[in-house]
Amino acid sequence: MTIDKDPTAIANSVALSTATDMGGLRQAQDQTGLMGDSIAAMVSRLAPHLLQSSDIPGHGEAGSYAHNQHQLNCRLCEEAGTLHQITGEQRYADFAADLLSRYADCYLGLGFQQARNTNPAGRIFHQILNENMWLLSMSIGYGCIKHSLTPERRSHIETQLLRPVVEMMTQHYAHHFGTIHNHGLWSVAAVGICGLVIGDDNYVAQAVDGLQGDRTSGGYLAEIGQLFAPSGYYIEGPYYHRFAIRPLLIFAEALHTHRPELDIYNVSGQRIGATIKALLSLVYPDGRLPALNDASLSMGIQDDGLLIAASVYNARYGDDPAVHALARQQAQVWVHPTGLALAASADQLVGNAPPFWPSAQLSEGPNGDKGAQGFLRARAADGDISQVSMNYGQHGMDHGHFDTLGINLFNRGGESLREYGFARWLNVEPKFGGRYLPENKSWARQTLAHNGVVVDRRSQNDGDQIRADGVHGQSHFFVGSGPVQAMSAFANEHYPGVGMQRTVLMIEHEVLSTPLLVDLYRLSSDVEHDYDYALQYSGQICDTSADYQPNLDQWSVLGEAHGYQHLMGMAQASITEPTRLTWLQGQRFNTWLSAADQGELVFAQLGGNDPSFNLRRESTLLLRQRGSTHLFASAFETHGFFDEPTERCWGGRGELDEIRIIGHDDTASVIELRGKRLHLIVMISNRPDVKSDSVNEVHFNGRDYRWTGFFACQE
Amino acid sequence: MTIDKDPTAIANSVALSTATDMGGLRQAQDQTGLMGDSIAAMVSRLAPHLLQSSDIPGHGEAGSYAHNQHQLNCRLCEEAGTLHQITGEQRYADFAADLLSRYADCYLGLGFQQARNTNPAGRIFHQILNENMWLLSMSIGYGCIKHSLTPERRSHIETQLLRPVVEMMTQHYAHHFGTIHNHGLWSVAAVGICGLVIGDDNYVAQAVDGLQGDRTSGGYLAEIGQLFAPSGYYIEGPYYHRFAIRPLLIFAEALHTHRPELDIYNVSGQRIGATIKALLSLVYPDGRLPALNDASLSMGIQDDGLLIAASVYNARYGDDPAVHALARQQAQVWVHPTGLALAASADQLVGNAPPFWPSAQLSEGPNGDKGAQGFLRARAADGDISQVSMNYGQHGMDHGHFDTLGINLFNRGGESLREYGFARWLNVEPKFGGRYLPENKSWARQTLAHNGVVVDRRSQNDGDQIRADGVHGQSHFFVGSGPVQAMSAFANEHYPGVGMQRTVLMIEHEVLSTPLLVDLYRLSSDVEHDYDYALQYSGQICDTSADYQPNLDQWSVLGEAHGYQHLMGMAQASITEPTRLTWLQGQRFNTWLSAADQGELVFAQLGGNDPSFNLRRESTLLLRQRGSTHLFASAFETHGFFDEPTERCWGGRGELDEIRIIGHDDTASVIELRGKRLHLIVMISNRPDVKSDSVNEVHFNGRDYRWTGFFACQE
Repeated sequence: MTIDKDPTAIANSVALSTATDMGGLRQAQDQTGLMGDSIAAMVSRLAPHLLQSSDIPGHGEAGSYAHNQHQLNCRLCEEAGTLHQITGEQRYADFAADLLSRYADCYLGLGFQQARNTNPAGRIFHQILNENMWLLSMSIGYGCIKHSLTPERRSHIETQLLRPVVEMMTQHYAHHFGTIHNHGLWSVAAVGICGLVIGDDNYVAQAVDGLQGDRTSGGYLAEIGQLFAPSGYYIEGPYYHRFAIRPLLIFAEALHTHRPELDIYNVSGQRIGATIKALLSLVYPDGRLPALNDASLSMGIQDDGLLIAASVYNARYGDDPAVHALARQQAQVWVHPTGLALAASADQLVGNAPPFWPSAQLSEGPNGDKGAQGFLRARAADGDISQVSMNYGQHGMDHGHFDTLGINLFNRGGESLREYGFARWLNVEPKFGGRYLPENKSWARQTLAHNGVVVDRRSQNDGDQIRADGVHGQSHFFVGSGPVQAMSAFANEHYPGVGMQRTVLMIEHEVLSTPLLVDLYRLSSDVEHDYDYALQYSGQICDTSADYQPNLDQWSVLGEAHGYQHLMGMAQASITEPTRLTWLQGQRFNTWLSAADQGELVFAQLGGNDPSFNLRRESTLLLRQRGSTHLFASAFETHGFFDEPTERCWGGRGELDEIRIIGHDDTASVIELRGKRLHLIVMISNRPDVKSDSVNEVHFNGRDYRWTGFFACQE
Repeated sequence: MTIDKDPTAIANSVALSTATDMGGLRQAQDQTGLMGDSIAAMVSRLAPHLLQSSDIPGHGEAGSYAHNQHQLNCRLCEEAGTLHQITGEQRYADFAADLLSRYADCYLGLGFQQARNTNPAGRIFHQILNENMWLLSMSIGYGCIKHSLTPERRSHIETQLLRPVVEMMTQHYAHHFGTIHNHGLWSVAAVGICGLVIGDDNYVAQAVDGLQGDRTSGGYLAEIGQLFAPSGYYIEGPYYHRFAIRPLLIFAEALHTHRPELDIYNVSGQRIGATIKALLSLVYPDGRLPALNDASLSMGIQDDGLLIAASVYNARYGDDPAVHALARQQAQVWVHPTGLALAASADQLVGNAPPFWPSAQLSEGPNGDKGAQGFLRARAADGDISQVSMNYGQHGMDHGHFDTLGINLFNRGGESLREYGFARWLNVEPKFGGRYLPENKSWARQTLAHNGVVVDRRSQNDGDQIRADGVHGQSHFFVGSGPVQAMSAFANEHYPGVGMQRTVLMIEHEVLSTPLLVDLYRLSSDVEHDYDYALQYSGQICDTSADYQPNLDQWSVLGEAHGYQHLMGMAQASITEPTRLTWLQGQRFNTWLSAADQGELVFAQLGGNDPSFNLRRESTLLLRQRGSTHLFASAFETHGFFDEPTERCWGGRGELDEIRIIGHDDTASVIELRGKRLHLIVMISNRPDVKSDSVNEVHFNGRDYRWTGFFACQE
């Protein structure tokens, strides 16, 4: 074993960059700033582990010591290799080499693990997915230290460990390799980078071109073109997007370095750049990702996928002040040459304002014609960012929720109209082995669990994934700038015989401390249906104008299926006039105003049919209407402030008093909003063929309403 | 009006210190460190208000703009005066003088407010209490700037504002003035300081000696001697303690300066020092106060009362490293000469470790013979502090809860065994005017709402405050140091014919990441009773060995009164063997082990009979037993870690497998704890006459158990 005195002499088996490029990191390591801090954090993370050989256990269940230790080991190997490249210190190389050699000693003797779900089993982990992730990190680590090993030791590691893992992936599990799926991305990145590191061009070709070599049926290039829409949106939603983007970008950097002829960052019309931008631009102001489809509520910008995404975007697609602000918010950068310029830019920023991404409509489908996800954003006078999202795109395959036309609202540090997220305690073995809980299907994915309308008490597409994957929403209009922003969409194929249109407007107004959300959800049918408009909220009801009857000593479930079996009815009201309801969530009051003057309001809470206590005890409001054509007109005002520790409170009552429907038909909907200091008339076109210069004219209640374009909001 | 170029020439009407003492603050104002930062924060707070005259509105309800503005105004007046003293800047004096003069213009014309509770109404506020607080701050502000005013202007302020307020307090509401109650403390501090500032010795005498002048029936000196136990504990609990300590200490500082002959800090055997220390030493490691009796869950060390307490203790009773650490945790100090030395000491600290207060037993009652509050504290190997409290003192007057022998457990950043706190949204006008909600009485104060035992489904003392105020618990033993700490107490007067003894042990052990809590609650009676052992937890149940039957589609209340009417039964289990139950709370797993091998376990949730949605949806476990004499033996282990954002988990299953009762009778209880890597025998004496050198010997199940002292824990 030799000592590298001159790290620039390190071989080019470094997977993710050239040794020369690592020079910048070498300079940054002792400097203050985001990159210096990030390297120092890596040094600190690794330090306690360097004191002794890392344990290599046998098989264990998810969340077990053995499982966690194997995951830790591959991370240690990657980071030790990286730090060897940066510092030139031999102890890092020795540590990584020790791990690699000892895994090579035992790997083939481990035998296969037991499969616990549809994912095939690896030799170390229950899921081959984990083994791919492990191989990727081990390969990066190996590439960084390979030059310091004797030929015998290299041979041992490659023949007893790396090649057997690759062959398991590409031969034993050939059907699973390079598929058009996030798991496929991990498999090609792992095998491709292993190939680059050990110098096996065949591995690299299989990874890039697919096992068939056609660049269409599978492999990295096929995945880039088919997994992500031209807008960059990823069909499974942001939680899986951030997971898929990590191998996507790691392999892209490796190919950028070692296969420049592929011109990877320009493939499919710069699809990689589009998909980074799409992911970054839907992040909530507090750094968390909206939990669209199956997702945890806490995933966010600290995830490796988003750290890598920020650095790669900045280095390969140009400077963007919002990306600089994101890096500042992340408070770390990817320890990689692409992170250097980003760190330097973030270090220059004054203040800690989160990035303000513009409103965006992200089309779905390989050709961008399968509906879209819409995101409106506006900033309050004090800088607080409001964000409303609406899903009018695709279902999202087996992680999809039946929530087309569902919305979420984020402001003042949290979601006011909330996503439940997935029902899963990932890696918590005592909770159903860390797998998806049954309630993920029976509650979290149901239409009822979202902020939308349930027709006849059944989920969209009857809760059938195959049917749901065959349809999608349709953008009606999207206006993402100005003091009144709006988006509108149709979903006419999700309930047979029922047309649905939802329009949300985000209105900035001088008397409102926070932008106002106006929501017009219109259903039309030739026959009568039950329409349940559902809202998911958190916190406690403070005040309401509804004359409700509480269920004092007994609560019963609201139904038997489609999520109703999980909701306990706490109270109900017969509605005879427009309703106002305020709840306190954290330090903020949220008021919902509804125009309905008939029907029933149900106050419900989760907990029914939950034999294993798998559901959080969250709250739902249901506004029930019976009719053929119906417009749900609502407004949501976030107002006031209550700080319990200091016992200060103001603005517990909102500015708005009432929302009323003036009229609606197939051509337009007109509503009015009255408050103490404002009076707004909101007019929107319901015609699918409306254009930005269309002249609209409708007549309701003896009055004419005229405007040009998609909608108007008049004082 | 004159400009003070030399602030040292400022008159000695400064209430809380001499002008000379203010010199230290003058030097600190431009320096870095805790005092400089605190002054700078005050300057920043005031800056936006100096731009224009502050609004003086008329009457308003609690939480209204008018109410808030009046509270703000007195604070602005006090801070402007203080900053005038520190900086010598005339603009601060002008601002305060403007406020005082304009209040003098309007005060007598305002008329009386409407009383909303048992508190008499003031002219500005619904509660005379608020008017006292207001007068205190206005008087401090006036004292700081009085020298800069013309005699005419002083006369206007004194005759039209300050004297009328005082006379309302001492004449119109004479029955309410200087009573032995926290409101009484506010009234004497306000009137006394007003007297010092305007130079009216009669006011000062009324405040210090009481309206009768006897220093016994009322007034400041009587309150010091009667409100606080010799241990310093305050009968109403920490939430009201921190509220009472603020006027206590402000007036003490004023008297220390202007009436040194009273030697106020040595009165009643240094009672003021004892009560500060008592309050500081029960603070949770995260800075919040345990919510004993009526209290918010979020009140803590940022409150003015605790800021002032830290400074005064340090200046008047000597240096204590724990107080320095507290000041560091508070991240601010009282802007007052007493804060200077504390700030300097805190500035010297390395690291941000919270204070580690020793375990303490705080006796109750004017003579310290009315039971006590016990607090055991232990530190885990990684520095995390565990704290368990047990109430075996007095009821606490009209803010008391029926929770004698109740316990709370804090560790890993939160309460594992929780207090509900009060049912009140203070200052949130739309929620019942910000007053105590009906559920405060029907739930929050009930025995069932605590971690204790309910006998025959009725609260202690049948929920009768008068009866409850007449009895108290009794300390049995208290051992507050060593690897096994313990406290034990009796409460034999809370249920007729039922003797109760509770012993809790906090055990540090090398295989446990967090100190273990062992809880032995023994009830004895000649006749059979229903015993409900209640636990309040937060989070989600992860795993349990109990074979329970969930109530899938309907939940019903557990009873009709004493809190049972608020609990909905979610599931129940017939117990046939010792039980283990784990719930996840935030990032930590908590496991409860129970020795019971019969009876019933009920899983319940709040929400029944809650017509105004006033209760939080929290969770309760009830272990029900029927018997005459019964020992509830439990252990609580906090273990593992789950971080959802990074999806890391370890230790989801605890170390302990089982707790079993070996035997118990009137002389002793012996239990055993078994785990994967430990086996403990815990023996405690149940004899009221046990001493630290008593030799105990009991015989259970054919085996002898011997130990010396109150208890023993053998491996």
